[in-house]
Amino acid sequence: MSFDVLQDKIRAMKNPTVAGLDARIEYVPEHIRRAAFEEHGVGLKGAAEAIYQFNAGLIDALCDVVPAVKPQSAYYENLGWQGMEMLERTIRYAKSKGLFVIADIKRGDIGSTAAAYAEGWLSGASIEGQQFKSFDADCVTLNGYMGSDSINPFLKAAKEEDKCVFVLVKTSNPGSGELQDIVAGDRLVYQVMGDLNERIAAGTEGKYGYTMAGAVTGATYPSDIRALRKRLEHTFFLVPGYGAQGGTADDVRYAFDKYGHGAIVNSSRGIMCAWQKTGGDGHDFQEAARNAAIAMRDDIKQFVTIV
Amino acid sequence: MSFDVLQDKIRAMKNPTVAGLDARIEYVPEHIRRAAFEEHGVGLKGAAEAIYQFNAGLIDALCDVVPAVKPQSAYYENLGWQGMEMLERTIRYAKSKGLFVIADIKRGDIGSTAAAYAEGWLSGASIEGQQFKSFDADCVTLNGYMGSDSINPFLKAAKEEDKCVFVLVKTSNPGSGELQDIVAGDRLVYQVMGDLNERIAAGTEGKYGYTMAGAVTGATYPSDIRALRKRLEHTFFLVPGYGAQGGTADDVRYAFDKYGHGAIVNSSRGIMCAWQKTGGDGHDFQEAARNAAIAMRDDIKQFVTIV
Repeated sequence: MSFDVLQDKIRAMKNPTVAGLDARIEYVPEHIRRAAFEEHGVGLKGAAEAIYQFNAGLIDALCDVVPAVKPQSAYYENLGWQGMEMLERTIRYAKSKGLFVIADIKRGDIGSTAAAYAEGWLSGASIEGQQFKSFDADCVTLNGYMGSDSINPFLKAAKEEDKCVFVLVKTSNPGSGELQDIVAGDRLVYQVMGDLNERIAAGTEGKYGYTMAGAVTGATYPSDIRALRKRLEHTFFLVPGYGAQGGTADDVRYAFDKYGHGAIVNSSRGIMCAWQKTGGDGHDFQEAARNAAIAMRDDIKQFVTIV
Repeated sequence: MSFDVLQDKIRAMKNPTVAGLDARIEYVPEHIRRAAFEEHGVGLKGAAEAIYQFNAGLIDALCDVVPAVKPQSAYYENLGWQGMEMLERTIRYAKSKGLFVIADIKRGDIGSTAAAYAEGWLSGASIEGQQFKSFDADCVTLNGYMGSDSINPFLKAAKEEDKCVFVLVKTSNPGSGELQDIVAGDRLVYQVMGDLNERIAAGTEGKYGYTMAGAVTGATYPSDIRALRKRLEHTFFLVPGYGAQGGTADDVRYAFDKYGHGAIVNSSRGIMCAWQKTGGDGHDFQEAARNAAIAMRDDIKQFVTIV
């Protein structure tokens, strides 16, 4: 019913970071690609298999360093249903290795439709009175533009399963301000969204004081994060934008509370694609990813101490 | 590069409506469910097959009455990858019957991620220099909370393929006002979104005067639609909320321009589930859906004349 499960994992590992699993086929080392294309042909199936091998290797290399992974649905939908089948396998494998899985899906729709999404991603579909799980993530990201009735069905499913969600508040991309930074009375639109989100989930706080509805707050806008940390005392933060998008450890430090709790920082390309910077041919992708994840952890540890 | 393809189909059929394909397993008549469960077992595969048979039957019954169908991704993701495989088949079958397919996905993400989505849903993934299409819809719905860089990659893909998109502006659900109706200077948030969207796509107008970036404007807020029609002269409207959600033909009339162009009205449950109101056992689901689609068309025709 809250972020306790994730925060416990973060504390155990002394590492408040999450590794994105957002592979495009060109991020996969050539020897893996070639083997998959030979076995399954050059196409959606071959690409999905290559990315699965890459993901599984990353999971093996990272599972005792990071507490969580975040597959971004777009990179799986990119390959059609064969990508989605591979996403199910990736989530299952990551969970089997003890990783907390945040499915980055940014869904949001009317209540009945949101309920269908929540079943698919969190609680399972009901068929002839039985529950059947498929994507079965521990947590999903949501877009709250449509209001609280687009979020509530996810909270209901998350409660049943002791899972949680993150709602977009202030995103990391260059155009985020076009809508989110607009002045609305005495607040900005993203503050309205953050306030609404904290209110929707009020009463679901766990032992660390955070509700089950976290917020996405981009590392690329550090002063906004600092203000949001004060404003949204009970909201756990997912902080994208570290690394490839330009955010630094110094930028993300203000996402954390005084105990070093209440936030997790994501890096995707910086970890996945670390092998492209070692000068090797990709056979060292696991070691490179692991080293990059350790470097990121230690970078953030300079500024954040988790008690 | 615009809504010409869809508007041409609407004119040819004199019918500005789209049928939602949003089946939950309980909407499928018992004889179809039973046959699918016997062949594939009670589970995700059996449910997906039952819904496919239902969808294909609906498509056969509706393809000479309505110009377009709108599958809602949630009802396919609900069944995991097997639902997504069935969605691909549904889209392919609908297109083979001449229907325009709007994939209701409401995606929105940072630029690189939006590009991955756009490939999956519109233009195809690039693998070893070749394009591989999967979901391959004619049009998708998007959520613009993250700003123009979350929409532009879809416009790029749509341009390449002569496809188009709809961006959420004012949605049909009860909670839509919580964010969308907030006062932001001299505008409301949804007006800001609508203005931004029309500006992003400026210059892509087709022969009917509409750009390739339409807007979702819910039938449940008719006075808002009326004002938006005046405000966004070059924006094609997708109008959900007719029927089950409470919108009437009188409510949706103002979405259209003086030629009866510029909008399409959706009904999902009212058509899909029409068989549940005939007193039969579901063997008449095609006839019931067809009659409901014709009744909807004629209902709207009372107020809207398409020239």
